[in-house]
Amino acid sequence: MSLKQLLLEKSALSQDLYLPHLSIDCVVFGFHDASLKVLVTKFKDQSVWSLPGGYILKTENIKEAANRILFDRTGVENIYLQQFSVFGDLNRSEKFFEDYPDSLWNKQRFVSIGFYALVNYSQVHLIVDEVSDACEWKSIDELPELIMDHRLIFEKALIRLRKELNYKPIGYNLLPEKFTMPELQKLYEIILGKKLNRGNFFRKMLRYAILIKLDESRKGGAHKAPILYKFDIEKYEKALKDGLNEGW
Amino acid sequence: MSLKQLLLEKSALSQDLYLPHLSIDCVVFGFHDASLKVLVTKFKDQSVWSLPGGYILKTENIKEAANRILFDRTGVENIYLQQFSVFGDLNRSEKFFEDYPDSLWNKQRFVSIGFYALVNYSQVHLIVDEVSDACEWKSIDELPELIMDHRLIFEKALIRLRKELNYKPIGYNLLPEKFTMPELQKLYEIILGKKLNRGNFFRKMLRYAILIKLDESRKGGAHKAPILYKFDIEKYEKALKDGLNEGW
Repeated sequence: MSLKQLLLEKSALSQDLYLPHLSIDCVVFGFHDASLKVLVTKFKDQSVWSLPGGYILKTENIKEAANRILFDRTGVENIYLQQFSVFGDLNRSEKFFEDYPDSLWNKQRFVSIGFYALVNYSQVHLIVDEVSDACEWKSIDELPELIMDHRLIFEKALIRLRKELNYKPIGYNLLPEKFTMPELQKLYEIILGKKLNRGNFFRKMLRYAILIKLDESRKGGAHKAPILYKFDIEKYEKALKDGLNEGW
Repeated sequence: MSLKQLLLEKSALSQDLYLPHLSIDCVVFGFHDASLKVLVTKFKDQSVWSLPGGYILKTENIKEAANRILFDRTGVENIYLQQFSVFGDLNRSEKFFEDYPDSLWNKQRFVSIGFYALVNYSQVHLIVDEVSDACEWKSIDELPELIMDHRLIFEKALIRLRKELNYKPIGYNLLPEKFTMPELQKLYEIILGKKLNRGNFFRKMLRYAILIKLDESRKGGAHKAPILYKFDIEKYEKALKDGLNEGW
């Protein structure tokens, strides 16, 4: 069935189930192969990609809706999720449906609530829903063309993530349980889009006091075995809540 | 006319003009008499106070709506405005209207978009609209009881403002043009709700490189005349955009 047929068929049900005018779009970040990736989907019959998104049931809270939408795409529950901005310009989404009848539920003006998520890449099972024909990870520096204002939504999420590095710890949802300091630095460099000084990074990270140095090191490789760290979850959670101990 | 009569009378017009289910609430901060204040209003016939808010015209963007709502309360245009969170729990606002007929436009479920604003206290002209009988500044440590979830909205705005101190300059919209370092420190202390070390504050602020030391000092008073500073607007604007030069 074509996208048009599917949407027309679901239009009346959508009107019954969902709040009008409100949608959710999610920027889902995962870290793999030393590259920051974002989850994108493609509607049937379309050449451009979309961020995963959906609508809000009349019977659910906003955060519940975001969790449900992400669970339906990834099979992961309780994903680390942050609402970061609202996208409410006139005609941000309406143009996409200009060839559809005005009665189509999806054709109304939508104000979209943007969430970003940090997920463990290896735990995600990509799920293609009935109106899509693809769901894939793409590197942030090789993102394909995105529909509507989804490029802007992605960019705003990345900017927010960069700013939050100044007061929030990061990595627990993105790195494996045990990691080296250069691996943690690489994650920061990729999010920030710039190189960092190794000594400064090391000192700043130790001042945050959220790492536990392990007695084991990684075997294999020609070089001296690198020291492994893991996050001190109690201190990490406290820093997420109260801010890093280097701030004001 | 009572609040009930007024709202019932405006209900049909509201339905014509505004997007359903979406509202805006604003936390407007001003700094006066060494105290951080928030603008609150009181609906007619109510004992508890509200944050200033409103709805979104079907013909306007979200940010335009927030600007219009604040202009109507303060007479100030182009206020420094940041969207910070969305409040969308079920029944967050419906209970307030439980004694009203179900046909009342205001009684539907509303998802509210929270904005905070930083304004120059002395430029604000408090405007009481037709459904209110008061509009006043209240100190953040002496806030009266607020309706619905407005206390939560205020608290989230303050938390966001505190976190943003780690990567954004602050003060331009809150302090007079020329100020002393102790006055700037006092602003930080009031927002953060804690004392700061004077020497550390001074060094950190100079590293931000957003201040211009003036050749004049403030006259009067028994003590040594304190040095005056003003913001270097070009560098301040750049830091607002790119982050303070102390971050990652």
